[in-house]
Amino acid sequence: MLSIAHQQLSRIMRPDDANIVGNVHGGTILKMIEEAGGIISTRHCNTQSGDRCVAALARVERTDFLHPMLIGEVAHVSAELTYTSRHSVEVQVNVMAENILTGSKKVTNKATLWYVPFSLQNVDKIIEVPQIEYASPEQEEEGKKRYEAQKMERLETKERNGEAIIPVISPEEYTVGFSQSSLIHLVGPSDCTLHGFVHGGVTMKLMDEVAGIVAARHCKTNIVTASVDAINFHRKIKKGCVVTVSGRMTFTSNKSMEIEVFVDADPLVETAKGKYRAVSAFFTYISLDKDGKPLPVPTLKLETQEEKKRFEEGKVRYLHTKAKRQAEQERQQ
Amino acid sequence: MLSIAHQQLSRIMRPDDANIVGNVHGGTILKMIEEAGGIISTRHCNTQSGDRCVAALARVERTDFLHPMLIGEVAHVSAELTYTSRHSVEVQVNVMAENILTGSKKVTNKATLWYVPFSLQNVDKIIEVPQIEYASPEQEEEGKKRYEAQKMERLETKERNGEAIIPVISPEEYTVGFSQSSLIHLVGPSDCTLHGFVHGGVTMKLMDEVAGIVAARHCKTNIVTASVDAINFHRKIKKGCVVTVSGRMTFTSNKSMEIEVFVDADPLVETAKGKYRAVSAFFTYISLDKDGKPLPVPTLKLETQEEKKRFEEGKVRYLHTKAKRQAEQERQQ
Amino acid sequence: MLSIAHQQLSRIMRPDDANIVGNVHGGTILKMIEEAGGIISTRHCNTQSGDRCVAALARVERTDFLHPMLIGEVAHVSAELTYTSRHSVEVQVNVMAENILTGSKKVTNKATLWYVPFSLQNVDKIIEVPQIEYASPEQEEEGKKRYEAQKMERLETKERNGEAIIPVISPEEYTVGFSQSSLIHLVGPSDCTLHGFVHGGVTMKLMDEVAGIVAARHCKTNIVTASVDAINFHRKIKKGCVVTVSGRMTFTSNKSMEIEVFVDADPLVETAKGKYRAVSAFFTYISLDKDGKPLPVPTLKLETQEEKKRFEEGKVRYLHTKAKRQAEQERQQ
Repeated sequence: MLSIAHQQLSRIMRPDDANIVGNVHGGTILKMIEEAGGIISTRHCNTQSGDRCVAALARVERTDFLHPMLIGEVAHVSAELTYTSRHSVEVQVNVMAENILTGSKKVTNKATLWYVPFSLQNVDKIIEVPQIEYASPEQEEEGKKRYEAQKMERLETKERNGEAIIPVISPEEYTVGFSQSSLIHLVGPSDCTLHGFVHGGVTMKLMDEVAGIVAARHCKTNIVTASVDAINFHRKIKKGCVVTVSGRMTFTSNKSMEIEVFVDADPLVETAKGKYRAVSAFFTYISLDKDGKPLPVPTLKLETQEEKKRFEEGKVRYLHTKAKRQAEQERQQ
Repeated sequence: MLSIAHQQLSRIMRPDDANIVGNVHGGTILKMIEEAGGIISTRHCNTQSGDRCVAALARVERTDFLHPMLIGEVAHVSAELTYTSRHSVEVQVNVMAENILTGSKKVTNKATLWYVPFSLQNVDKIIEVPQIEYASPEQEEEGKKRYEAQKMERLETKERNGEAIIPVISPEEYTVGFSQSSLIHLVGPSDCTLHGFVHGGVTMKLMDEVAGIVAARHCKTNIVTASVDAINFHRKIKKGCVVTVSGRMTFTSNKSMEIEVFVDADPLVETAKGKYRAVSAFFTYISLDKDGKPLPVPTLKLETQEEKKRFEEGKVRYLHTKAKRQAEQERQQ
Repeated sequence: MLSIAHQQLSRIMRPDDANIVGNVHGGTILKMIEEAGGIISTRHCNTQSGDRCVAALARVERTDFLHPMLIGEVAHVSAELTYTSRHSVEVQVNVMAENILTGSKKVTNKATLWYVPFSLQNVDKIIEVPQIEYASPEQEEEGKKRYEAQKMERLETKERNGEAIIPVISPEEYTVGFSQSSLIHLVGPSDCTLHGFVHGGVTMKLMDEVAGIVAARHCKTNIVTASVDAINFHRKIKKGCVVTVSGRMTFTSNKSMEIEVFVDADPLVETAKGKYRAVSAFFTYISLDKDGKPLPVPTLKLETQEEKKRFEEGKVRYLHTKAKRQAEQERQQ
């Protein structure tokens, strides 16, 4: 039975939704809350004639996590439309954790979200929201107060929103610093073998991801992996580690870029062990145009002695590979 | 029919396996290559009596990507055992892309991987590898040469593996700099609505992930999300952006930590638009012991005037929330 | 509000749930159906005192895909307990696709599943099922008939379950060997229940994936799942297994293809146990043009006596289903 103004999502919590101890990540719950809110407000804003639209999240009110949710429990997320202004929709969401083995249930979250509907014909145009009916004038009045309060706060935060976390010296285009990138990844159950070690393939996928971002930042086109130099896996990475994967460009030829990638593992809880370098490797990327043909690559701008040294080393690797490939081709003819 | 010494994996390439233009990421292919290698070598090393074991990846030889693979194609990854030393296994892998609509096939990769089997009874113990039979003495001789060559290279790289990408000033424990973290995420099709905008819930999940890493780095225990302050979504994030999510600790009370999280979006290809701040918010975490009871949190060490100012602001938010909660509890009694 | 005997799951369909043309995979829907069934039957079997238990999928009745579901639509899966025998539970599931932009809704599937509850204290022990109340004696009587019928069929299929799919050397187009396909999948934590058994829904999704590849290879067009014959789950599959899923075409009519799919489980490490056949089933696919209209299917070329025999058996199933459907339509008029 489907109601326009009510929506429930339910899902079993899996190992990938949780940390090693079995507590479901707050982020998993926030994602389900927003999915329920997005469905209910998009459905509501399309109950009138005129442009079709999609509701975009504009604001989430303060949300408390009242009880931890565990792997194996069923999360029930129920959303309800509670207020409509001319251009926005308020949705209230309750989350309940049900243990289907013991039958116990507990409320884990209550959240309030605001959505704004955008036209699909013109994605910058905001649509008028069909008004809902209220059980009483008091209910409408309270909704209006909540609407005015959040509107004020949204304007305030918009102003003080320019700060950066690490003061970036905004590096010049085509320098090493400009395209340099790193990501952190919390190792989850799906990344590991049955015995708690990260699959080498998972590590390589993260390395390629970082290398690809470095390459795309440098040449701003469609880029693809051309080759990976030999990779040595010096030390195993264990479940529960935070992995930092960093990449920097070392060399550019006319049509290729070489990116060096480092993987550092940090056993969050067992601090005695400390952070260690687990893997490093060189990835080569090429840049492609719309028909999949290779494009010229902007030359890397070198600023320090270190960068110049690394560039020369990259050139040696490049010429060595090129010579090897030519020799192979000649042998095959 | 399953052969001990041969293994094939096949899988359709999906939108999440590829970039916006439809080229499958090199990383997706590397991950499949390693999955095939891991299965074949673990199976082989368990064909003898004694300890059960799992094969861990030790090295991947240089790998070329000969042709791009596309969404909708079937990737066939076939792995073969080609050499065994006393403590390691060599696996050779071929990858073929098949277009099941036109029937065309092309080889995209050839890779060589080395695995070392570890005992499941004692994860630091390396197991002896059952030897394979060779078709000819020449074949064995060539395998031995490859084995010796890679062994040499592994030793070499082990030595020069200490460098860091950004010279870290190795900050002191419990300072803001010590736990500060950031991740980058390439927005994929699964993160987006049909119309190419990132779901707000996906953004919140990434924010919670970073905040959780900051909290765990600070107190090195099991941590859980206690609350999230109001979040405003100022600007939509589009498909193909790189999102940088950064978190820093702003305040600690006896039993809680406040972490400020920023989300910046960078439209990789449409550079005209430039990077912009999309969202920011405060997450509160608590630290739990093994029985799920709250633990005291180490006090944040403040080093700069900016940090002190942010700590005071965090304290105001903390006291304000506490007072509000007490008022609510009294009203309910 | 949670009811013991009713459960609804809802979720937006994402790009990863569908093929390139945007049709949601039958396997995605089968997986959601099984998740709903697993929740409702596990919850019911734990409403008594005694051992806590988890319900494992034992059988799925023939399931038709009445309409294709598309990316962006919301799938609503609702499950209801309809019969209990001493050791098994019958669950009936309806799936509805809702377009939240136009408001249109259509029923896409009706399915019937049978579950058996296993004790968590002793995973080989089957628990007694608490009996449900029926609205009328007729309702109970009909349930009993369905129970007896499926019990008979489960015993029958158990017997003829030994055959393997044998690889063929460079086959001609439209032959069985030409489209024959198999994939392997290493069972990870996310595929399993808390207690280390693969969710039946995960297995069905893999089966649909292979059947889809076989169908696409045969007719080289956009193909969609039309129906799945009854599937029996003879043996549980455990975490750490390698699962081989193989498919071969058995029969073609003017507008449909029948594909037989086998699932074999191989406990990689515990080799003593050996490989075993876990599941097998028949999938029917149809071929669609760009406007979603059915296309004629190339006739399967038969080369061996075995293939001719299987083709005739497929024809019997096809004619039987066709006659049954016509009888139903006449009754409804």
